[in-house]
Amino acid sequence: MAQSYPDPLVRLISALSHLPGIGPKTAQRIAFYLVKTPREEVGELVAALEGIKQKIRFCQVCGFYSEGPLCTICSDQGRDRSVICVVEQPQDVLAVEKSSFRGLYHVLHGVISPLLGAGPEEVALDQLVFRVREGNIKEVILATNPSVDGEATALFIARKLKVFPVRITMIARGLPLGGDLEFADEATLLQAFEGRRELHLD
Amino acid sequence: MAQSYPDPLVRLISALSHLPGIGPKTAQRIAFYLVKTPREEVGELVAALEGIKQKIRFCQVCGFYSEGPLCTICSDQGRDRSVICVVEQPQDVLAVEKSSFRGLYHVLHGVISPLLGAGPEEVALDQLVFRVREGNIKEVILATNPSVDGEATALFIARKLKVFPVRITMIARGLPLGGDLEFADEATLLQAFEGRRELHLD
Repeated sequence: MAQSYPDPLVRLISALSHLPGIGPKTAQRIAFYLVKTPREEVGELVAALEGIKQKIRFCQVCGFYSEGPLCTICSDQGRDRSVICVVEQPQDVLAVEKSSFRGLYHVLHGVISPLLGAGPEEVALDQLVFRVREGNIKEVILATNPSVDGEATALFIARKLKVFPVRITMIARGLPLGGDLEFADEATLLQAFEGRRELHLD
Repeated sequence: MAQSYPDPLVRLISALSHLPGIGPKTAQRIAFYLVKTPREEVGELVAALEGIKQKIRFCQVCGFYSEGPLCTICSDQGRDRSVICVVEQPQDVLAVEKSSFRGLYHVLHGVISPLLGAGPEEVALDQLVFRVREGNIKEVILATNPSVDGEATALFIARKLKVFPVRITMIARGLPLGGDLEFADEATLLQAFEGRRELHLD
């Protein structure tokens, strides 16, 4: 009979391989590492895993990560509550926060993908429509990814919100700062030229 | 104030980034994935983690993974108990099991690395010396990695066991099967030529 690892080790390797970005080799490497790791360190990881399941949920209003019913952004009265920035995933919120945007968010938790057959039911839109219908929203900024799916999703949302008296904008596509014109792809260049702006010199 | 993720999420990302082969990006990706994962699946991972800490230890005789004081290999009376194959890590045992070797093992749990300043105290040798001294061992096969450290370790062990009436061998270095002579490195070629064997035709 060919030898194999003891069952508990096989079980951990299998559980680890189900995680995104972890192949069978990395799963093994992590499992071997954890066997040698002090019990306390594994305990910290276990506590952290249980922590997210017990404490982390999605904000009832915008869908960002939250420890209570409302996330820290939606509860922050110092922010501009008349602008909503729509993003695909919760992690996109932190990316947008690096800009000077200080309004509110709406997280879609998905994207419409005509190619993969993912329709409008894949994105959480009801809450956004509700917020816009309720009023007090002046502008909805669509910040989906600059991909085929992201553009399709943005277009769908724009059509859906057309009936409301609200400004609907989309963040600009163009050459990234620090990028190189020589190595820019065609699609980006096309968008960069289409989105060209007048330079006002005085 | 710049926004960040809720504390439990930050804690999990940090715990995950300590694992080998997991960078900050992968740690985030796994954490975001786990937030959306059903509680049961995270429960399975937690149980698996606790399982290895509660159930997996190292065999008292050879150092391979084990659920009891002795591993399944050392307890197997059907194996050749007169040959010990010395490997660097527990996972090397399974690699050697792919060959036709059916003797016993000794896992060093480390390697002597002159370059990194890791001396003989880095390898678990006492138990091997004890087993060889006790007798009944006819041959010790050194199967450390074909690297500078592996060779240094093998040499050190060979010297240490010289005093005992035991045959000490080292697995062959040479061209890997399916490899290409054209792309073989110099060191491998040198070893392949040094280890050349007479072809006995009849």
